[in-house]
Amino acid sequence: MDMVTNMDRLEKQIQFITLIDEAKQVFRQNVVIRDRRPENDAEHSWHLAVMALILSEYSTVKDLDVAKVIKMILIHDLIEIYAGDTFCYDEVGIKDKAERERLAADKLFSQLPKDQAEEFKNLWLEFETEKSSEAAFAACLDHLQPLILNYNTEGHTWKYPGVTKEKVLQRNVTLQKHAPLLWDYAKMIIDNSVAKGYLRRV
Amino acid sequence: MDMVTNMDRLEKQIQFITLIDEAKQVFRQNVVIRDRRPENDAEHSWHLAVMALILSEYSTVKDLDVAKVIKMILIHDLIEIYAGDTFCYDEVGIKDKAERERLAADKLFSQLPKDQAEEFKNLWLEFETEKSSEAAFAACLDHLQPLILNYNTEGHTWKYPGVTKEKVLQRNVTLQKHAPLLWDYAKMIIDNSVAKGYLRRV
Repeated sequence: MDMVTNMDRLEKQIQFITLIDEAKQVFRQNVVIRDRRPENDAEHSWHLAVMALILSEYSTVKDLDVAKVIKMILIHDLIEIYAGDTFCYDEVGIKDKAERERLAADKLFSQLPKDQAEEFKNLWLEFETEKSSEAAFAACLDHLQPLILNYNTEGHTWKYPGVTKEKVLQRNVTLQKHAPLLWDYAKMIIDNSVAKGYLRRV
Repeated sequence: MDMVTNMDRLEKQIQFITLIDEAKQVFRQNVVIRDRRPENDAEHSWHLAVMALILSEYSTVKDLDVAKVIKMILIHDLIEIYAGDTFCYDEVGIKDKAERERLAADKLFSQLPKDQAEEFKNLWLEFETEKSSEAAFAACLDHLQPLILNYNTEGHTWKYPGVTKEKVLQRNVTLQKHAPLLWDYAKMIIDNSVAKGYLRRV
């Protein structure tokens, strides 16, 4: 590749890197533990990625590709720059979530050079459809992390109308299949949260 | 390993994951592009990790272990939870930085199970001492990212006393050796910044 072509490619990549700074301003329902201000997608993704480094031993899959889990995690929420964050217990927003996010993915990733656009889109799709062991484990972490934040903030998002122990258990049931010890731990957190009054039993 | 031992280990790991939520409240000198509020270590680390995914092709090393670069990036600033962030152009703070950070690393990583404590500490040391191609490339990204943020915020941290074109060039010179095209790009940003009045020539 000659110098000019290469600089075009790099310029596209830097533009993309500049654009995704926006993920630092896409806010989630969860709050960070000390300041109790909304967590953003960039922080959330970082936290999950470190969790993957620490907790991969609990996957039921022995040859789990942790590097791939981390790649997926790093980009899994980028599409929210265009699609926004949909709260997992929001039964209205959840209805057109898939369509909104697919359009956002096309718009976002097409700004990368073609080979990387394809790579990122495929990684995102694999995560979204939980098509591999790596995607399933990434999803486990994506469910476990808000649980940890909630437990340490007296159940911040569990105070929302309609959230009950049963719904939180349902939301985390993927852990049971893909990381049984993390599932046991999650159930323990959930039971303690009910006992402490952070989460409604019904 | 029996169930009880395993739960002890997991408990330690979850405590560590809970503790590092603090990285979301360790603030850097740079600001995020749209809101111009200080960037924190968690966001910064996430941004670098995505940059590693996109820009690894510019490393002079052809068999670069990108997964290792990303691991290093994800944990490289964790020690600032105890040691705080030292501004790179702070000539006083820089003096005892190494000692403060070594103590912080001991205190922080020893809270993980022993094998992971060792793994994380070694990764951090490798990054800190730029001992491998992976560490050198991680350092390149750690220098390039603030440049991108500064360029898009009219030179936010370049307004500080004592920061000149020459100092910014010096700070980024590691790019020249390890990622020459990124170095060309950095020089272009720096020249444009001087032209636009974001950065003092002298």
